[in-house]
Amino acid sequence: MPPRPILRVCLTTALLPTFEVEGFIAVVIDVLRATTSFCVALDRGAIEILPVRSLNECRRYGRQGYLTAAERGAKKVPGFDFGNSPNEFLQADLRGKKLAFTTTNGTRALHAVRHAKEVVAGAFVNMSVLLDFLRQRAQPTLLVCAGWKDHVNLEDTLFAGAIATHLETDFRIADDATLIAMSLYQQAERRKKYYIQHAAHYERLVELGMQEDVKYALRRDLHPVLPYYQDGALINALQVSHA
Amino acid sequence: MPPRPILRVCLTTALLPTFEVEGFIAVVIDVLRATTSFCVALDRGAIEILPVRSLNECRRYGRQGYLTAAERGAKKVPGFDFGNSPNEFLQADLRGKKLAFTTTNGTRALHAVRHAKEVVAGAFVNMSVLLDFLRQRAQPTLLVCAGWKDHVNLEDTLFAGAIATHLETDFRIADDATLIAMSLYQQAERRKKYYIQHAAHYERLVELGMQEDVKYALRRDLHPVLPYYQDGALINALQVSHA
Repeated sequence: MPPRPILRVCLTTALLPTFEVEGFIAVVIDVLRATTSFCVALDRGAIEILPVRSLNECRRYGRQGYLTAAERGAKKVPGFDFGNSPNEFLQADLRGKKLAFTTTNGTRALHAVRHAKEVVAGAFVNMSVLLDFLRQRAQPTLLVCAGWKDHVNLEDTLFAGAIATHLETDFRIADDATLIAMSLYQQAERRKKYYIQHAAHYERLVELGMQEDVKYALRRDLHPVLPYYQDGALINALQVSHA
Repeated sequence: MPPRPILRVCLTTALLPTFEVEGFIAVVIDVLRATTSFCVALDRGAIEILPVRSLNECRRYGRQGYLTAAERGAKKVPGFDFGNSPNEFLQADLRGKKLAFTTTNGTRALHAVRHAKEVVAGAFVNMSVLLDFLRQRAQPTLLVCAGWKDHVNLEDTLFAGAIATHLETDFRIADDATLIAMSLYQQAERRKKYYIQHAAHYERLVELGMQEDVKYALRRDLHPVLPYYQDGALINALQVSHA
């Protein structure tokens, strides 16, 4: 039996320079809400999600026929088609559409890991698809929590812990950040609501009236898609492999 | 009643640039083993611990009459009086002695927080003294886990979680890293041995025959001292306040 591949967790994008991403499949995690929204948008038929860093760049793609999604500080930026709420995408018919997307944390994390072997995005809403993909690849894997403005956050760490816990027998867990994330997940399973309600970002979202987004983002396997980074954009890898 | 001061956790020295340390009392934590050893050395009578960054600087202080302690990659560096094992200091009579100290992580963390309002060092062996000090000061407090070569580690996060859990009613917990550390502590209380045995640094220390250091570092309140940073060196603040 070949040795099990390593699984590691990077707790915030700010710590990425301490990893050599080139050797890993990177899983970008921004549960509240970018990677959740990516899954919804792809499931609603979007053929491409282009993560861009600036509002200006997003506008430019808008003029080239892309739909645009822009969020800053958890809020939708006026003048764009969408913000960063899963609910907005749920209600849209995106079949055949391309989407330019800029957010505070998630799109930044995607850019930061672009030199990894392969890059996918994960959230609770596509968890089983992601687990299947990682097991099938069986490569060194780095779970990259986007965090909140360089800080470690609860919801991304929780999801990384869930993934690591489910992959514990297939991968080799070899760093303390992974153990810490797994401990959080195991503790939070019993008190998930308590934990999420204490998360700093939860308070921000509730103040903005976005509790429903939080509830939605914690539900599992609603969107069986795999956001896969290819030529600078996310496509649904499940669709491609079935083509 | 005045509002409770904030308590935050920085999970590794690599994340320090994301905090404004100037506004905080900083608690440097390097449980395995620097801050544990600082406590032992001060309790054994050392009047000053001078954290230095390079081996050369350490040697230079040695020529000026300081005792020297030097560790790299968990090992004692040949040619110095001590490494970084609590046990070495336990067996030494350090009354009236000055000690120049260089380690992989702990002394580096001390240097990184030198612009904080006040800087102290903590470990399980001086936990109650540290808690008393922080409650008495009632200032914004940043628990700084030294980590292992920029990576988050289990033992420092565990200790930060212990401190935060004990101060939960006196301070305001306002970031997710603190909640994550508290969750780890609460989970690990039931399975401390399991957790520590899985910590990456534990394996390194066991390979080097240092299990006893780990056991020692997890015992509480053996050394009622408070390593306090003043004019570039650590002194025992308890002794000073009693003078």
